[in-house]
Amino acid sequence: LPIGDDAAAWKPSRSHLSVITTDALVEDVHFTRNAFSFEEIGYRALASNLSDIAAMGAMPVLATIALGIGPECTTDHLLELYRGIDGLARGTNVAIVGGDIVRAQNLTISITIVGEVRASNMKRRSGARARDILAVTGTLGASRAGLDGSSAHEARAKHRTPVPRIAEGRFLGASRSVHAMMDLSDGIAMDVPRLARASGLAATIDRVPVAPSAEALANSRAIDPQHYALEAGEDFELLAAISPRAFGYLSGRFEKRFGRPLYPIGHLYEGSGVNVRKGEILEPLAETGWDHLAQ
Amino acid sequence: LPIGDDAAAWKPSRSHLSVITTDALVEDVHFTRNAFSFEEIGYRALASNLSDIAAMGAMPVLATIALGIGPECTTDHLLELYRGIDGLARGTNVAIVGGDIVRAQNLTISITIVGEVRASNMKRRSGARARDILAVTGTLGASRAGLDGSSAHEARAKHRTPVPRIAEGRFLGASRSVHAMMDLSDGIAMDVPRLARASGLAATIDRVPVAPSAEALANSRAIDPQHYALEAGEDFELLAAISPRAFGYLSGRFEKRFGRPLYPIGHLYEGSGVNVRKGEILEPLAETGWDHLAQ
Repeated sequence: LPIGDDAAAWKPSRSHLSVITTDALVEDVHFTRNAFSFEEIGYRALASNLSDIAAMGAMPVLATIALGIGPECTTDHLLELYRGIDGLARGTNVAIVGGDIVRAQNLTISITIVGEVRASNMKRRSGARARDILAVTGTLGASRAGLDGSSAHEARAKHRTPVPRIAEGRFLGASRSVHAMMDLSDGIAMDVPRLARASGLAATIDRVPVAPSAEALANSRAIDPQHYALEAGEDFELLAAISPRAFGYLSGRFEKRFGRPLYPIGHLYEGSGVNVRKGEILEPLAETGWDHLAQ
Repeated sequence: LPIGDDAAAWKPSRSHLSVITTDALVEDVHFTRNAFSFEEIGYRALASNLSDIAAMGAMPVLATIALGIGPECTTDHLLELYRGIDGLARGTNVAIVGGDIVRAQNLTISITIVGEVRASNMKRRSGARARDILAVTGTLGASRAGLDGSSAHEARAKHRTPVPRIAEGRFLGASRSVHAMMDLSDGIAMDVPRLARASGLAATIDRVPVAPSAEALANSRAIDPQHYALEAGEDFELLAAISPRAFGYLSGRFEKRFGRPLYPIGHLYEGSGVNVRKGEILEPLAETGWDHLAQ
């Protein structure tokens, strides 16, 4: 249905489950106008929602958008914002089917996405098993390096226009050897404990793949790049728990398909808590990642 | 799926279409804390979304909620707000499956609802036909009378806890003689022109059913009750375009089922524009209802 009715309608696939996710972004809490163009603000809002759909192994189908617009928001700003949303929506075959525009004090963007996934392909956080390998779909820390002022192209691109890992999520979702999945929005230090807890397991993080721009920025500030990448959020890579027997084969197919490795970062085992390897020593992880309400 | 994964999943009905709608409410734009309790704020936010689903002839299934909470919002406020949402959700069999809570300057509530409807039962605004009778599912103006300070129970209840017309919408949706439907959120003076335009027709409004509390309040202020009720918003009754041949039978069944009449208010015909009957004279309607962006 075109926008204009009280609701939009679609015909869900008969063989799939539907999935839904909602995210809200608020000016001066999640982004500032100084740091981003309106086009980037729109793009990022949709990208972070698409990342949640990707984490389920699902294909996004449609989105609704509720915009709260502040008094200084002009029509040009809105068009620019919408251009950012629309560009990514077209690129990912997502139909924008409706929404609401209301006045607000600050620019607020709430996006709801509906996707579809075969029941057998859907991944949750809670499905991991002891001895599973934890892996991520890309290097980490570049978005944070962009936030921290890195001028490297990698850091700027990852910070401003992160690419949601939809194809990667569907690829991993289709494998029975992938037992659990989630997206890395708040960083490894926050998100690995979440996956481990949801699955009733403990985890060890051996080593994470650090993005070159993050490595350079951490080194320039005399910070351990591993530590920097562990705590960096908004990379929107996927975190998966994968059967150790299937990992070699799956990561080979992943690299062939996506042109980059599926990076193992650690493993899960019986117990609770998350440790980080520092040489021969395992240190308990300090959960210091990004938490909006804790700020 | 329980909340906690990146998205919630459900199995859509094989024989139905899915419908989706999103609405946002912002403190000091759509409501104030002085006027409403947090429980009422939550209730009304869900009710206005449910009304959109009802207007499609659909049954609501699930909802996601994105809350932006201001600095003065306490945990108690949030619990009270949620109690209002949850009470209505339980009463209407809607599962709250997820959402997001973020900091904001003002309390902001964005709700997305997914519903289901048989394709043959779904009603749109654009399906009305010339000679259709325009009808509403209840008397009008009580919510506005509540806003304007009426202490009548009817006005308070309709203003604070309006009942979305879900059963009425499904009843009307199931009839082939109902050609178009929408909900009355902005008032007859805004919404009849919308339905007429969407259907490419003209409309005449003969007389609208005025709620007793609205009649009393209008009279006390020396305002024509018809005029008052025409411009009153937020009644969340349904507006339907119904075949004139079937109207008598359908309204009889409606009254038997719901214990109140299906009120005819006018009719549609070929042409464009909306007139209001004043005795023997038809006056063009001034579209003066509620429009958030025009404020």
